Amino acid sequence: MITKRKLILGMIFLLSLSSVPLFCEGDGEALNAISDLQGALTMVWVIVAAALVFFMQAGFAMVETGLTRAKNASNIMMKNLMDFCMGAIAFMFTGFAIMFGADQSGLFGTTGWFLSSASFETLKMFMFQVVFAATAATIVSGSMAERTKFSAYMIYSVFISALIYPISGHWIWGGGWLANLGFHDFAGSTVVHSVGGWAALMGAILIGPRIGKYLKTKNGKTEVRAIPGHNMPLAALGVFILWFGWFGFNAGSTVDGNAPQIASIAVTTTLAAAAGAIAALFTSWILFKKPDTSMSLNGALAGLVAITAPTAVVNPGGAVIIGLIAGILVVLSVEFFDKVLHIDDPVGAISVHGVCGAFGTLAVGLFATPEGAEYAGIKAGLFFGGGLEQLGIQALGAVSVFAWVAVTAGILFGVLKVLGILRVSVKEEMMGLDISEHGNESYSGFQVFSNQ
Amino acid sequence: MITKRKLILGMIFLLSLSSVPLFCEGDGEALNAISDLQGALTMVWVIVAAALVFFMQAGFAMVETGLTRAKNASNIMMKNLMDFCMGAIAFMFTGFAIMFGADQSGLFGTTGWFLSSASFETLKMFMFQVVFAATAATIVSGSMAERTKFSAYMIYSVFISALIYPISGHWIWGGGWLANLGFHDFAGSTVVHSVGGWAALMGAILIGPRIGKYLKTKNGKTEVRAIPGHNMPLAALGVFILWFGWFGFNAGSTVDGNAPQIASIAVTTTLAAAAGAIAALFTSWILFKKPDTSMSLNGALAGLVAITAPTAVVNPGGAVIIGLIAGILVVLSVEFFDKVLHIDDPVGAISVHGVCGAFGTLAVGLFATPEGAEYAGIKAGLFFGGGLEQLGIQALGAVSVFAWVAVTAGILFGVLKVLGILRVSVKEEMMGLDISEHGNESYSGFQVFSNQ
Amino acid sequence: MITKRKLILGMIFLLSLSSVPLFCEGDGEALNAISDLQGALTMVWVIVAAALVFFMQAGFAMVETGLTRAKNASNIMMKNLMDFCMGAIAFMFTGFAIMFGADQSGLFGTTGWFLSSASFETLKMFMFQVVFAATAATIVSGSMAERTKFSAYMIYSVFISALIYPISGHWIWGGGWLANLGFHDFAGSTVVHSVGGWAALMGAILIGPRIGKYLKTKNGKTEVRAIPGHNMPLAALGVFILWFGWFGFNAGSTVDGNAPQIASIAVTTTLAAAAGAIAALFTSWILFKKPDTSMSLNGALAGLVAITAPTAVVNPGGAVIIGLIAGILVVLSVEFFDKVLHIDDPVGAISVHGVCGAFGTLAVGLFATPEGAEYAGIKAGLFFGGGLEQLGIQALGAVSVFAWVAVTAGILFGVLKVLGILRVSVKEEMMGLDISEHGNESYSGFQVFSNQ
Repeated sequence: MITKRKLILGMIFLLSLSSVPLFCEGDGEALNAISDLQGALTMVWVIVAAALVFFMQAGFAMVETGLTRAKNASNIMMKNLMDFCMGAIAFMFTGFAIMFGADQSGLFGTTGWFLSSASFETLKMFMFQVVFAATAATIVSGSMAERTKFSAYMIYSVFISALIYPISGHWIWGGGWLANLGFHDFAGSTVVHSVGGWAALMGAILIGPRIGKYLKTKNGKTEVRAIPGHNMPLAALGVFILWFGWFGFNAGSTVDGNAPQIASIAVTTTLAAAAGAIAALFTSWILFKKPDTSMSLNGALAGLVAITAPTAVVNPGGAVIIGLIAGILVVLSVEFFDKVLHIDDPVGAISVHGVCGAFGTLAVGLFATPEGAEYAGIKAGLFFGGGLEQLGIQALGAVSVFAWVAVTAGILFGVLKVLGILRVSVKEEMMGLDISEHGNESYSGFQVFSNQ
Repeated sequence: MITKRKLILGMIFLLSLSSVPLFCEGDGEALNAISDLQGALTMVWVIVAAALVFFMQAGFAMVETGLTRAKNASNIMMKNLMDFCMGAIAFMFTGFAIMFGADQSGLFGTTGWFLSSASFETLKMFMFQVVFAATAATIVSGSMAERTKFSAYMIYSVFISALIYPISGHWIWGGGWLANLGFHDFAGSTVVHSVGGWAALMGAILIGPRIGKYLKTKNGKTEVRAIPGHNMPLAALGVFILWFGWFGFNAGSTVDGNAPQIASIAVTTTLAAAAGAIAALFTSWILFKKPDTSMSLNGALAGLVAITAPTAVVNPGGAVIIGLIAGILVVLSVEFFDKVLHIDDPVGAISVHGVCGAFGTLAVGLFATPEGAEYAGIKAGLFFGGGLEQLGIQALGAVSVFAWVAVTAGILFGVLKVLGILRVSVKEEMMGLDISEHGNESYSGFQVFSNQ
Repeated sequence: MITKRKLILGMIFLLSLSSVPLFCEGDGEALNAISDLQGALTMVWVIVAAALVFFMQAGFAMVETGLTRAKNASNIMMKNLMDFCMGAIAFMFTGFAIMFGADQSGLFGTTGWFLSSASFETLKMFMFQVVFAATAATIVSGSMAERTKFSAYMIYSVFISALIYPISGHWIWGGGWLANLGFHDFAGSTVVHSVGGWAALMGAILIGPRIGKYLKTKNGKTEVRAIPGHNMPLAALGVFILWFGWFGFNAGSTVDGNAPQIASIAVTTTLAAAAGAIAALFTSWILFKKPDTSMSLNGALAGLVAITAPTAVVNPGGAVIIGLIAGILVVLSVEFFDKVLHIDDPVGAISVHGVCGAFGTLAVGLFATPEGAEYAGIKAGLFFGGGLEQLGIQALGAVSVFAWVAVTAGILFGVLKVLGILRVSVKEEMMGLDISEHGNESYSGFQVFSNQ
């Protein structure tokens, strides 16, 4: 009877029904594609950032070469190259699993050895993390420069990347006990720089100063001699490269290409580095009557190291203040380790990475803004009404990592020393490690004086 | 009565209705996510580009160091480092607000001081702009190399970044009067390079030539002496770094990660640089009978500077021609300033950045294709049927910025000169600025002759 | 009668109908925008990668300069700069069309000359490809260093970029006969590195060794003398730059910002380079009793060259093994060419790029995993159950490209030799090419001995 109407009704019914799944399907397709794109953007961002962080190896190599003597230039370069190479393989074998594997008691990871059958997602993570591990490792070559046996340094490279760095790293970035306490270290003032800096400290103490660095005078005092670097343009180039790479180091640590915080991180990183260089320049100008080149270079690095932990939680003004403090601190610290403690650190690695890394870690508890703290899931800093709680947690983390590295790196270098394989002979040191360890000059054809 | 039918109808009705809001909601979600992604891609693009532009500081430092003498290498490096650091803080305090704040009469901006409570969007913009400001600032160190007091250079760095650069920058990129006239300078041939180049010119004029550069002979003529640079590999490395960074400088200036023009900009940038180096090589080969190293290096830079304004509006063929002209121009200009005007510019900064920057600005009015002009919202160039209008506007802009910088930089360097703090003493200049200003050698252990 | 019902029905009908186009329209908008975004992400990725590959020019320049003598440093730099510049213009004129134009009989392309009226998509492709072409070209300057006339090198640069490289490139990447056979060279072990390496071989053979390199002794034997490089820090910096750029070279070769393979490519690239350096270090340590600096540097490059073809189809373990083999291979190969064949290759370019490029090409047929092979559309490697088929195809490709380059580069250098314009005079070679070819010293002010 109502055939026509039934037809229409049926048509409508089918249309109506079909429109729902059609719609859902289409929408789901779009949302899935969007989700894939977000992932793809993150992939591009993280790999570009990882490449930038890798390039920091060149920066470290240049800074360390520039600030030491011509007769050891190839040796320093080789150490900087090989700590990455040995470290990368070691981190692939065990380090990555210890740092990011399934947590055991908040202390270390236990899964993902050898990077076998890893997903693209895991490989992305590994790529970003292996260049961070290598950064921690390469810091030490500076403080132990011009006197460490190449073979000993190779052994050290494996241990720090396979074991020492990943364990404290797990505590903070791998879901370990410090992470659970609310400790915040966005890009690694402590995880990376302090670990490297405190290992550099233990190495410098245990290997002792270079020949001719501290001379006992008749009246029992110690004369401290400067041993100038041989290539300041290379050292400056190294600082520019490090700063450039630091955009990947800090901003890349969002590990998310969709995070608007990338902008504020890049800006706070830039401003802290600039302020660090300015502060170190003027501090050295006041102390030494001249604006010192290597101190200013180290000032920029000090600002960068210090902003690394708080980079995502502070505002531009906070970044400038953190940089200024770090720049002053690094000059005083270099002087203190050299003139007072007589610990010979040819490039200032202990002060730049250890001391300023610790300061930067504390700076989170001082300068974190409420908005920054919310993003990071922590308490605001002391100067922003957050009280002392976050500062306390930050201090606990800094001290714990110091203790861990001091003990383990101390054992490592101590054993190498006891075995008599840590340091080159006096003759080799005088001759220079390029010839004695590698059999080549670095500057063939140039008249070079192997001055002390 | 028609219960069944009513039921079906109701069902259909609900389904039909529900499908509409469901659809809209879903669709809105997708479109919002897409919009976020477009923004995120732009963020990643702009920050990566900013990092590349930052790295150009290393390029400038290397070029200037390589083309000057060994006794001044640390000093040049320090100037290149500190102009960025001082400039970045100055630009944060006032420069950014003057350049991009709310417009006042087309002349300067008036809001956004100190970068306080800036959004992520604003910080992204700041990050990209601060590295451009620093590029303009660092150009000057080259033309005034080997004789400028470090303290004077520090003062200059603040003024150019805080005041001189931002004001002319506001005219063009901040919505000022030149922007309103239709002046087009995509990535800064005028905004950045000419500003740096003309400041370099005023500085070189006011400080005078290096000792021994121009010698009066008995017959009243002037003998022009070459003062060769001390490290050509560093200079060449600097050019490669600058070229590398220029991909960020030009292509990043889309300030949009979704712009397909990124491809054409990268290509025109590459081709102009290549053509510039080739043209300078052959021009020097003809003029000096040998293919000159530093001229060829400057030729690549000349091509890069010249393509910076028109990079987005010309086709590959146009880019090659612009590069060729710039490469010839830079050699003739360097010779003219040196041999005819006797203005001592150790690295050719005035010719590369001032002269080729002005040429590139005019090139917009000559070589802009109709498609390019449409993208930029300007008239096509003279050679593409666009008449003289755009060329006239470009010329007005180039002349106006020249006048602005000549006057303000002239006053700045003039005041420093009158105060007697612009130039080091003869003794310091002879000794080299590394020792006299910073107390260190750059190449300790090497036999270096402080020639001239 | 059923007016009300008809009204409702009509309403429902309209709603139902409208919801479908409404939905489709909205969905289409979203999907279009997503497609645009995928393209934009690829654009950003490819251009950033291209910039990184461009920067490898600096790496080549530094490695070659560092490993040769001070008296030829400017000349090497100029060759590295100008082969890019000449090559880029040549590739724009003919190379790109021959390589990627419409296929003719599987042998060469025939459309797209002069890059005229190219779309943004084509320009993106050109940008990525021109830096690859330049990489092939620049390899040769190393093996022919310190004795090749600058003008001859300029002529060579045009021919390789305009003709030799694009034709074999077309066979593999342009849809030519090797591509059709299933030959796989992801990022150019053969397409780029072997082409450069075999051209380097022909050049080194035809130009002959440097004066003093191989000395006939009284008893008819040949004494092989080492001619040490003058700047090891620069050489090491060059390797770091090359490695950094290689992230763009390999990972960028997805030519797709949405490919998750970007992660695995970056990781396999890193691990192969690390393993290569380690293997070369220990091989040299065993052979020469000391861990050799330049061998270790070349070991990293050997790993990079070898992983370039298989980077997307192997797993991390495979990458480590490939790197280890390449690192051993490069040391043995360098010794073989020098000590046995007496072919003078100052930087080891033949071994690094030719030999390890061929090995990497074969490695595809050995180490390709089933998953990797599926992604690449090839057979799995021999060690992963894929049999010998892929290995055979890879060998055929490697041999074919060797033959092509050996013949064409042989003719090119042969003609230049016969014309007497290939090599500088004995006097010029002794004096150094910086002075004789360019009229400037590279290290003015330094005491440099032009040894040998």
